[in-house]
Amino acid sequence: MVTWDQLTKEQQGEVDRQWHIVRRGTAQIVPEEALKQKIMNAVHTGQPLKVKLGLDPSAPDIHIGHTVVLQKLRQFQELGHEVQLIIGDFTGRIGDPTGKSETRKQLTEEDVKRNAETYQKQLYKILEPGKTKFYYNSSWLGELKFDDVLKLAGKVTVARLLERDDFAKRYAGNLPIHLHEFFYPLMQAYDSVSLHTDIELGGTDQTFNILMGRTLQGAYEMNDGQVAMLMPLLEGLDGVQKMSKSLGNYIGIDESPNEIYGKTMSIPDNLMLKYFELTTSIGNDELRELEQGLQAGTVHPRDAKMRLAKEYVRMFHGAGAADEAEQHFIAVFQKRTLPDEIEAALLQSEELEDGAISMVKLLVTLGLQVSNGEARRSIEQGAVRINEQKITDIHALIVPQNGDIVQIGKRKFVKLELV
Amino acid sequence: MVTWDQLTKEQQGEVDRQWHIVRRGTAQIVPEEALKQKIMNAVHTGQPLKVKLGLDPSAPDIHIGHTVVLQKLRQFQELGHEVQLIIGDFTGRIGDPTGKSETRKQLTEEDVKRNAETYQKQLYKILEPGKTKFYYNSSWLGELKFDDVLKLAGKVTVARLLERDDFAKRYAGNLPIHLHEFFYPLMQAYDSVSLHTDIELGGTDQTFNILMGRTLQGAYEMNDGQVAMLMPLLEGLDGVQKMSKSLGNYIGIDESPNEIYGKTMSIPDNLMLKYFELTTSIGNDELRELEQGLQAGTVHPRDAKMRLAKEYVRMFHGAGAADEAEQHFIAVFQKRTLPDEIEAALLQSEELEDGAISMVKLLVTLGLQVSNGEARRSIEQGAVRINEQKITDIHALIVPQNGDIVQIGKRKFVKLELV
Repeated sequence: MVTWDQLTKEQQGEVDRQWHIVRRGTAQIVPEEALKQKIMNAVHTGQPLKVKLGLDPSAPDIHIGHTVVLQKLRQFQELGHEVQLIIGDFTGRIGDPTGKSETRKQLTEEDVKRNAETYQKQLYKILEPGKTKFYYNSSWLGELKFDDVLKLAGKVTVARLLERDDFAKRYAGNLPIHLHEFFYPLMQAYDSVSLHTDIELGGTDQTFNILMGRTLQGAYEMNDGQVAMLMPLLEGLDGVQKMSKSLGNYIGIDESPNEIYGKTMSIPDNLMLKYFELTTSIGNDELRELEQGLQAGTVHPRDAKMRLAKEYVRMFHGAGAADEAEQHFIAVFQKRTLPDEIEAALLQSEELEDGAISMVKLLVTLGLQVSNGEARRSIEQGAVRINEQKITDIHALIVPQNGDIVQIGKRKFVKLELV
Repeated sequence: MVTWDQLTKEQQGEVDRQWHIVRRGTAQIVPEEALKQKIMNAVHTGQPLKVKLGLDPSAPDIHIGHTVVLQKLRQFQELGHEVQLIIGDFTGRIGDPTGKSETRKQLTEEDVKRNAETYQKQLYKILEPGKTKFYYNSSWLGELKFDDVLKLAGKVTVARLLERDDFAKRYAGNLPIHLHEFFYPLMQAYDSVSLHTDIELGGTDQTFNILMGRTLQGAYEMNDGQVAMLMPLLEGLDGVQKMSKSLGNYIGIDESPNEIYGKTMSIPDNLMLKYFELTTSIGNDELRELEQGLQAGTVHPRDAKMRLAKEYVRMFHGAGAADEAEQHFIAVFQKRTLPDEIEAALLQSEELEDGAISMVKLLVTLGLQVSNGEARRSIEQGAVRINEQKITDIHALIVPQNGDIVQIGKRKFVKLELV
């Protein structure tokens, strides 16, 4: 282990530079000093750090939420380090041993292989292939025999495992925890033992599992346990829930350029800077400028968002596609002539029934039409849109969201505000 | 599954006979009806039942306490059934994965083999070799891979395992339970799955583990789960603690005829019938007669105990050795002229220091000698004995036990009563 004083001035500068870059946007680094020491060692010896990310083998569709950790991996690669991507095929191949879960279905060897190829294709839009190694954890976990498993299990206590948030809640609530579930964090942790990982990345919801890797490396007498680098969870298009495919609030990196561009434009303004910081490679200085411009009002939020949208399309489909998507958006936008500033219209929650309201009633309630008859006619004529989507069914039921744009013809707009 | 009415009169009689015999002396049968049904099936089909006992591979010295379950197995064999003896070598070979326990030392293949041979030699003093099958559980547990282990673990919940008495106490007391420990009951249970066991025998302290075997057979879809047959724990020579080698209160079946005979004579009177019932093959009728004789005073306890002692020597060393041991005991007994009824002498616990007292002080305190000087002289002359063992060191420290016989010369005796 090298000390600070043993480094040359240049090496100290390089350590500072790397430290500055890798810390950006992180939610937590455990422990911070260990990461600094690892960077010092790497700079001193020229030996790259091994930075690990585990991938769910059952869900290979990558969205912007996933790119938070991927961007961080990319930064490590640019600093000369190596990325270990673990496809958790061992768990995937097992499925749910209790046979009770419908979501955890058993994957065949072909499923796993196909998903891995899908991953690779998408991940290389962000990562450098030459500094990325793929691993299937079945290649070591599948070889463990019962006595190896008992040795592994001997390294942790039941009480420690019951501290994991979801286990603690279920145990307290008398909901069953099947014993094999205790092994999920242990398997992930054992991957780090097997690969001598230096740093493991994950969302803050992975804290327990990643720290278990650190513990286990210690128990297997790898003195220098891995560092947990925890990234914030990115809220999805709704601005509230974590971005996820199942909630539908995501931007998939394999979606078409126009979809990516359009969806990006629907991100809530207040999240824009977070998206820039965590999911693009825009530099720290530029990021600070952007922030100041938005605060001072010299940068229009819509313009900043268009820049983000274009950047995403560029990242995932190239510069040409990015230009086209921008042109397409401007054309549609201009044709529709959505005014820059849209007036807010308050909608009382008591008007809703189970969160819904008929389109006809909505138009009248908001004062966009004076009667139900007039509202029905506008709908039949195809003049009514919500968020630029035409509503033609006069019986349509709407579940209004804050910020929805309700439009009649080319001139009348309001932006919903639920109260 | 055969019903009672489908059996012939002779078969019904046979079921009753077997049921009567196998129930004798049991502490609990779970569930009773299932055992009855299994016997009915066996009588109906002629297919013997598989009756299992697990053996600790690290402690092959069998004592009378172990013979409680062995006698029960023998009864099953006499009724035509088959015995499965499982040598738990898999766990023994692992040792303690945490490396913290000094007692659970790792056994080599040679250790296990040597212990198994020692077992066999001793066990065949009670069991019929032709109806006894030995198994090493490493032959199936050693073959399990990680995915098999996860399937096994998926059959039970953490809460169920934490119900086991020792786990519950440790968890409540914040004492560590290492995860591999959860597998000890599961491994024992899996042995029953692997061998399609019908009935598992064990002491009442094995209730949890044996019922786990029943649960697991169910989970592996062996509809007809094993029956737990739980035997009482036998108190040792002290009449209080469970007989065990580490407490020293045991009669080993490989001890010399004179040791077995002599130790048996030191069993407390009130336990004699329990020893007869649980550890000999004396018939139920004879047992009742003996009980009545002792109650009515027509049978002297010493004579009954001599019969028990002779029976043990006969079982473990043959009839010739039994006669000799009896003669030896009578000869020693007559030479020493121990009186039939020995007066009790009370010893106040406050006379003891850390449970001990000097031999000199003991003699004076009990009033057997009037002075320390006199007591020392008696000891030096070799006239003092405790439990027929000569004490010649005048500095000897004694840890007196209830019922100890303290003797000076050939006439003075007392039996200690600690108060």
